Amino acid sequence: MRTHYCGQVNSQLIGQEVRLCGWAHRRRDHGGVIFVDLRDREGLAQIVCDPDRPEMFAAAEAVRSEFCLRVTGKVRARPEGTVNPNIASGEVEILCHAMEILNASATPPFQLDEENLSESIRLQHRVIDLRRPQMQKSMQLRYQTARAFRRFLDDAGFMDIETPMLTKSTPEGARDYLVPSRVHPGQFFALPQSPQLFKQLLMVAGFDRYYQIVKCFRDEDLRADRQPEFTQVDIEASFMAEGEIVTLMEELIRAVFREVMAVELPNPFPRLSYGEAMDRYGSDKPDLRVNLELVEVADVLKDVSFKVFAGVANSPGGRIAALRVPGGATLTRGEIDAYTQFVGIYGARGLAYIKVNDVTQLNETGLQSPIVKNLHEVALKAIVERTGAQSGDLIFFGADKSKVVNDALGALRVRIGHEKNFLNGNPWEPVWIVDFPMFDFDETERRWTACHHPFTSPKDGHLELLQSDPGRCLAKAYDLALNGSELGGGSVRIHQPEVQESVFKVLGIGDEEAQLKFGFLLDALKYGAPPHGGLAFGLDRIVAMMAGAESIRDVIAFPKTQRAQCLLTDAPNSVDEKQLRELHIRLRQKVETQVEVGKG
Amino acid sequence: MRTHYCGQVNSQLIGQEVRLCGWAHRRRDHGGVIFVDLRDREGLAQIVCDPDRPEMFAAAEAVRSEFCLRVTGKVRARPEGTVNPNIASGEVEILCHAMEILNASATPPFQLDEENLSESIRLQHRVIDLRRPQMQKSMQLRYQTARAFRRFLDDAGFMDIETPMLTKSTPEGARDYLVPSRVHPGQFFALPQSPQLFKQLLMVAGFDRYYQIVKCFRDEDLRADRQPEFTQVDIEASFMAEGEIVTLMEELIRAVFREVMAVELPNPFPRLSYGEAMDRYGSDKPDLRVNLELVEVADVLKDVSFKVFAGVANSPGGRIAALRVPGGATLTRGEIDAYTQFVGIYGARGLAYIKVNDVTQLNETGLQSPIVKNLHEVALKAIVERTGAQSGDLIFFGADKSKVVNDALGALRVRIGHEKNFLNGNPWEPVWIVDFPMFDFDETERRWTACHHPFTSPKDGHLELLQSDPGRCLAKAYDLALNGSELGGGSVRIHQPEVQESVFKVLGIGDEEAQLKFGFLLDALKYGAPPHGGLAFGLDRIVAMMAGAESIRDVIAFPKTQRAQCLLTDAPNSVDEKQLRELHIRLRQKVETQVEVGKG
Repeated sequence: MRTHYCGQVNSQLIGQEVRLCGWAHRRRDHGGVIFVDLRDREGLAQIVCDPDRPEMFAAAEAVRSEFCLRVTGKVRARPEGTVNPNIASGEVEILCHAMEILNASATPPFQLDEENLSESIRLQHRVIDLRRPQMQKSMQLRYQTARAFRRFLDDAGFMDIETPMLTKSTPEGARDYLVPSRVHPGQFFALPQSPQLFKQLLMVAGFDRYYQIVKCFRDEDLRADRQPEFTQVDIEASFMAEGEIVTLMEELIRAVFREVMAVELPNPFPRLSYGEAMDRYGSDKPDLRVNLELVEVADVLKDVSFKVFAGVANSPGGRIAALRVPGGATLTRGEIDAYTQFVGIYGARGLAYIKVNDVTQLNETGLQSPIVKNLHEVALKAIVERTGAQSGDLIFFGADKSKVVNDALGALRVRIGHEKNFLNGNPWEPVWIVDFPMFDFDETERRWTACHHPFTSPKDGHLELLQSDPGRCLAKAYDLALNGSELGGGSVRIHQPEVQESVFKVLGIGDEEAQLKFGFLLDALKYGAPPHGGLAFGLDRIVAMMAGAESIRDVIAFPKTQRAQCLLTDAPNSVDEKQLRELHIRLRQKVETQVEVGKG
Repeated sequence: MRTHYCGQVNSQLIGQEVRLCGWAHRRRDHGGVIFVDLRDREGLAQIVCDPDRPEMFAAAEAVRSEFCLRVTGKVRARPEGTVNPNIASGEVEILCHAMEILNASATPPFQLDEENLSESIRLQHRVIDLRRPQMQKSMQLRYQTARAFRRFLDDAGFMDIETPMLTKSTPEGARDYLVPSRVHPGQFFALPQSPQLFKQLLMVAGFDRYYQIVKCFRDEDLRADRQPEFTQVDIEASFMAEGEIVTLMEELIRAVFREVMAVELPNPFPRLSYGEAMDRYGSDKPDLRVNLELVEVADVLKDVSFKVFAGVANSPGGRIAALRVPGGATLTRGEIDAYTQFVGIYGARGLAYIKVNDVTQLNETGLQSPIVKNLHEVALKAIVERTGAQSGDLIFFGADKSKVVNDALGALRVRIGHEKNFLNGNPWEPVWIVDFPMFDFDETERRWTACHHPFTSPKDGHLELLQSDPGRCLAKAYDLALNGSELGGGSVRIHQPEVQESVFKVLGIGDEEAQLKFGFLLDALKYGAPPHGGLAFGLDRIVAMMAGAESIRDVIAFPKTQRAQCLLTDAPNSVDEKQLRELHIRLRQKVETQVEVGKG
């Protein structure tokens, strides 16, 4: 039907006849001549329609925005002064010989170049929205990224193996999406939250290296930027130690960024222990573009007269961190109030600070703050030394339970870093976080929970800590962060049944419960399971970062809203009573339904 | 952890030290020496353990079947007379220096080389089953096939775009799998039966060429070889005419077979109209390896005294077909009885036949059959001429409604062809079936139904038949068959809203119903939808054929049984009442549940 894509027509084709198909992006009349910018997925081409071919000209006159056209014409150089350097075909235009209207178009619900469209309008008319050049580029980028992942993994001997979508519900972690069975009344499949167990089974089955770019499902309350269904690059390998996996995976990410973005990421990626990351950045996905760091000062504040600090410094699980803002003495009262409000989101009950007027005077003259008079000189000296404060700086403090301090000051660090430009200038800063703890202690339920998942292997030499001191037991788990977002994470898995049993014991999972939930994995471990480990990357997030998109919804062709709805197809929807009967289920009573609405 | 895969160790490595990881496939003691066949996904390597290294030898003595091992040793040539030409590493063996038992194994539920395992045992212990070399090969083949599809489509400018898994239920065609919504009480998502509508939307959105290797779902009664979830290579393109799509798609299939099987399929594939395929083979997926053909003889049987024939010949919708079996006069009574029973499966109420003793005598001497005396000479002459019968042949007849005759004699043709070796000797016989009818008439419901789907475009020039004679209206639909199985099918779609409305009218789908079910597609067609069409291939079926597998379950890592169960994970299963409450559903009453069991 055509000879070229619009975006491919260039000065090398001058003098040739081409046939193009696409959409009327813009039409304008100028001096009795009609110009049509014809658009396809590769770009725009300018079509010139002279009135001396009446039939063609009549067609051109009928053309409106988004009409679908086929055009035949001769490529020629644009007249001097009309070259458009912004588009690939900007040096040429096509003198139209024939124009066929393949399909007319009603007036679109919005212009493609309209900015500030509401997201709900865009999602309702997603098909038109996807025609916008930005969305075309984002979907191309997503495709190229997935392809780059595949190429690297194919070349590295990883096999793409499909795991089931209709699988078993295991009431762990996030909520499952359930699928009622018609054949087995009262029973349900679950959509996978990840192929975790299946990929481990594939390793036990001897496939050695596995990957899959696969949909996963979590029926969670949709925070900021989550989707009910999301796409994971899922990877697992046998006979590789933790360091080998991490090295190979960062080669993978470097290759993907090189191929898709023409960006060379650092080699190697820095590696930080979880402990160090929390100490210095208050985060296990630190944004290393930001130059600011936290420092610990609790140890010198145990005996100060400022009660808030002394109290935290003397209680287990507390942290007092200082964040130096170079030149921050110029921050306005309003800015500091805004930061105080901001850390409140993370549970901080205040935001103490010291303005460093003169670093040589460790008193209320040199250091301006209501708290200074309640801190002794040893403390002030340590604070100034550890933060490296200079005259003209400002030092913020967080003092609370470690989690609150880390969340609050970690977020403040990133916010100030970007607002006040304390950036190292690198566009991409990847970092591995390693040596995660095996377990978190859930204070409410008074029990240990798995930080990663219950199949994660303890570090070599940490096996006995499982019994003696689970809180100090570290895991062979690793997360990759980029610019403060988590790209992916994984772990070396437990391959020995007796280790798995010990871990279940710490987690309070009894034999019977373990058998019921994970029996098929435990069973498989019995038959010579190989050492293995792996990782999963979040494709949506990676592509969104590459595209500079605000939301992962902008890199998904047909996303759901934050209320888990598809505005285009109007899913979910009501179904026939007959369908429910076949599935052996019924709706709960109306009154109950209405009560539940409020909970959504 | 290792230097090579077991299957890669060969005579080029003689003298070198290698480190291998894998499983003890076999262990045997011979003259004080222990031999271990070490297996990984690439093959076997023979490990020789001499008693002069006591520590290593002790490990070797502890080894049992399926222990997971790491072995270090030197590659050497096997002694003369012990070379194994059947395996890649058969010229060499590894003299073991060190052996580490990475993991012990309980006695496996079955030996890996055990034949005649029941499928349910295999599926229960799928992880062990997948270790069998045959299954390893099948999964490799599946991976290579999917990769070959991707490579061709990538190179041809098709973009992989993901469509939603949680989508809208449309009570059309097969039964949907439903997913209750937690956020929207009483509403349900459906798992996609195919991304049909979404891929059309992507064309309207201007992506031009799309593909996806994607899971689809149908909650159907699981006939012979179906799965609740199956994998489709889904393809759609804009601005391509029917012939261009068909040509490109057969290039795709040729490329896949070339890359994966090193097989060169015919170029071009033969193309048969639906009508001709039914006439000659009684099937729209004819097995062209079989040399036998049906011929129509109803027109010469209208006035014969054999009532069965005359009755069918004079009723509309009837067919009388003859199938000549060369040399078939030697078929035994028992064989013919078996064939008669066989056609009964397809609804045929008998299987008339004539033995051709002497083709020159068109009477009860030359032609042996109780029906001959009730057929006049004109009929007999036509039958002999049209079938090309020779002395010594046998001619079977089917006389009934067309569908019954086609199903019965079509199947008989294939059965006899393979049993009696009327084969052309080609291992692969692809064929396009084109020019399908747009509509079938459903006699029970007295209405037209879509043969392909309601979005299929009528042939050029057939538009007015939509109103005047829908039964004669042909579609731009095409199916690809290989060796009698359907590999895939597709169509050019309707891109003009007014044509879509006309088709809905024939199907008795009113405006309101159309808007409710397909509103988002109809809406999209309004905005300059491009001409477009596509196709979907069944990946499971293609790989099963390539692997020579009896069932698609043999080329799926974790399949469901024919009762839609996963015997490995025991899915589907019961779930907590709490989960159901969150989803605003409840189970139907127990008694009702039990009644329904029988229907599964």
